[in-house]
Amino acid sequence: MSMIETPYLLFLGDAPDQLAAKVAQGIKDWRPDNAVGQFRLPGCGADLGLTDMDLAAAKAAGAKTLVIGVANRGGVISQEWKKVLVTALEEGFDLASGLHNLLRDEPDLVAVAKATGRALHDVRVPAVEYPIANGKTRKGKRCLAVGTDCSVGKMYTALAMDIEMRKRGMKSTFRATGQTGILITGDGVPLDAVIADFMAGSVEWLTPDNDEDHWDLIEGQGSLFHVSYSGVTMALIHGGQPDALILCHEPTRPHMRGLPDYDLPSLEDLRDLALQLAKVANPGVQVVGISVNTQHLSEDEAVAYLQEVEDRMGLPTVDPFRHGAGRLVEALEAV
Amino acid sequence: MSMIETPYLLFLGDAPDQLAAKVAQGIKDWRPDNAVGQFRLPGCGADLGLTDMDLAAAKAAGAKTLVIGVANRGGVISQEWKKVLVTALEEGFDLASGLHNLLRDEPDLVAVAKATGRALHDVRVPAVEYPIANGKTRKGKRCLAVGTDCSVGKMYTALAMDIEMRKRGMKSTFRATGQTGILITGDGVPLDAVIADFMAGSVEWLTPDNDEDHWDLIEGQGSLFHVSYSGVTMALIHGGQPDALILCHEPTRPHMRGLPDYDLPSLEDLRDLALQLAKVANPGVQVVGISVNTQHLSEDEAVAYLQEVEDRMGLPTVDPFRHGAGRLVEALEAV
Repeated sequence: MSMIETPYLLFLGDAPDQLAAKVAQGIKDWRPDNAVGQFRLPGCGADLGLTDMDLAAAKAAGAKTLVIGVANRGGVISQEWKKVLVTALEEGFDLASGLHNLLRDEPDLVAVAKATGRALHDVRVPAVEYPIANGKTRKGKRCLAVGTDCSVGKMYTALAMDIEMRKRGMKSTFRATGQTGILITGDGVPLDAVIADFMAGSVEWLTPDNDEDHWDLIEGQGSLFHVSYSGVTMALIHGGQPDALILCHEPTRPHMRGLPDYDLPSLEDLRDLALQLAKVANPGVQVVGISVNTQHLSEDEAVAYLQEVEDRMGLPTVDPFRHGAGRLVEALEAV
Repeated sequence: MSMIETPYLLFLGDAPDQLAAKVAQGIKDWRPDNAVGQFRLPGCGADLGLTDMDLAAAKAAGAKTLVIGVANRGGVISQEWKKVLVTALEEGFDLASGLHNLLRDEPDLVAVAKATGRALHDVRVPAVEYPIANGKTRKGKRCLAVGTDCSVGKMYTALAMDIEMRKRGMKSTFRATGQTGILITGDGVPLDAVIADFMAGSVEWLTPDNDEDHWDLIEGQGSLFHVSYSGVTMALIHGGQPDALILCHEPTRPHMRGLPDYDLPSLEDLRDLALQLAKVANPGVQVVGISVNTQHLSEDEAVAYLQEVEDRMGLPTVDPFRHGAGRLVEALEAV
C-alpha cells in the first residue's frame, strides 16, 4: 500500500498560472491513473485538461485523497483554501501536501482530521523512523541518476525510464526521494528532510531486496559538486548501492545553481567521481548512459550536442524529453 | 558566549566504571578549567581525580552548569539521578546532557527548569535553525580531520592540535561537531542530528570569517568510505571549506566499523579522494599530515609503523596521544 491513498483529486486552488501547478502537472503527466479530476477555485489560471470536479463528484469517481498540487501565495493557507480542505476531510478525503507550511500546523485541519479519522500527509516531513544504513548487499538492481548540478533533470530521467521499462514489460519501480516525486507516486522518502545520521539508511529502506530482474529507479538529489547538498547525494550513492548510474547534465548553466562562484564539473569529472564513490558500496557498478536536458537548445543544437557528447564519452546520450528514454533503458538491459 | 555556560560541575552519577564516565573524562582532560569538581552518587565506580563537591560547594566555586558526564543504564533517567537534577535546577544550575533520552522529554525537569528560569541543554539536538550553505569563501583558515573509518581519533587529533597551538601562541579554535566535543567546549553543532539540507550550512555557520592567521580545527565525523555516514563527512568537507586536511587512521581494524563486509581504504585512497572533494570548495586545500591511533600497537611497533607511513606518504605522521601533536601543528604553520 502506498503511503498516500490513490487515486487523487488534484487541488489547483487559485493558481495564478500553469507553472504554479507544476506538482499537479507532474502527477497528471506521470501517473494519469492517479488523477480522477481537478478542483479549481474562481480565478484559477491553471488548467491540466482534466475534468473539473467538485468533492462529491470526485468521491463518486473513487478519489481517496485531495492533493494540493499548487504552490500557495505568501506561505499561508488562505481561508478560501481552508474551506475546501475542511469540507474534503468531512467528506472522507485524506489530504496530501508538499507545502512548506504544514497541514499539521493548522489547528482547524488537525481537529477535523481527528474527528473524521482522515490523514494529513505532509510529504516534506519524514513519516518513518529510518534505520542507520547497514551496507548489506541487496537483491534486485538499482539505477541512480546523478547530476553535474541540481535541477538538471534527474527526476524526469528516472520517471521517463520507469514508464519506458513498464511499456516494455520490464520490472521497474520509480523510487521518489523528493516532495514532487512522493506526491506523484504516493510514496517515497523526503531525503532533504531526513536527519543526517539516517540519510543512507532511509535510501536502503526505500530500495529493499527485490526480484533479481527488477530495477529500482532512484530519484537523484543535489550533486556531488554542489557544496550545499553534496552530502545528500553521497548518501544516495552509498545507501542506494546502485548497479547503474545515469549522468545528468544541463549544458547551458553559467554556474552551479545558486552558487555564482562555482563552475559546473565536466561530465568526465562526474563520471569518474560518482563511479569511484559508488564502487565502495557496489564494486560492479557501471555508468550506463547520459541524460541531457536540452530545453535551452534548438532541435539542431540539441542533436549536435548529444552526438558530440556521445562520441566523446562513448555512452548512449539522449534527452529523454525530446527523444524518449529508450536508449537509456536498453543500456540498463545490457547490465 | 558559549551555548552552555561554563564552568561545570561534572555529574558522574552511579557510573559502574571509568569508561562509563568518558564524556566527563574528556572535559577534564581537554578543558580542565571548565570543571570545578565532580559529583558522585553512592556506588559510583568512576573517579576523575577532581574534588568531590555537593551542589552548594560547586555553586560557591562558581559552577554554572551541571553536566551529565556519564552514560545512563537502560536508557532511562533514574529516580536517584532525578533528585540531583531537580535540586541542581532549584539551586540555580543549568543542566547539560548528551544522553539519547532527552532532558526536555522529562516533564518534571521541564517544569522545574521553567519555574526556576534555568536551561536544559540536550546537546544531541540542534538548538539553531541553520542556513543552507552558500559556499562563499571565508576569511581565516580551517583544518579538518578526515578518517579512513569512524572512531579512529579525529576528535582527539583536533583537540590535541588545538591545545598545542594555544601553547605556541597561535590562534586556534576547536570546532565541535559531536556530542562529546560540544560538552567539552560548551558549544558546537551536533552534525549527525542536523536535517540533511542544512548539514553543510551548519558547518559554515560553525566556522565563520575569522582573522587571517586564525585556524578553526574542525572535528571530523564518519568517513567518506563508511556507507552509513559518508554524507555527513561530505558535508563537513564542503561546508568546512578546509585549507588543510589531516588524515586519521587506526591500523589494526579488520573492517569498517559496524560493516563486516567492508574493507578499510588505504591512506592513499583517502588522501586522493578527500583532496579531490575538498578542492571543489577550496582549490588551495592541502593534505598536511597523518594522525595514527596506535593504541593497539606496542611502542616499538608504533614507531616502526609511523616511520613506514611517513616514508611512504611523504607527510608528517604521528600518534598525537603518544608523541604529541607538535609536528602536525608545524605542518599547519607551513600552509
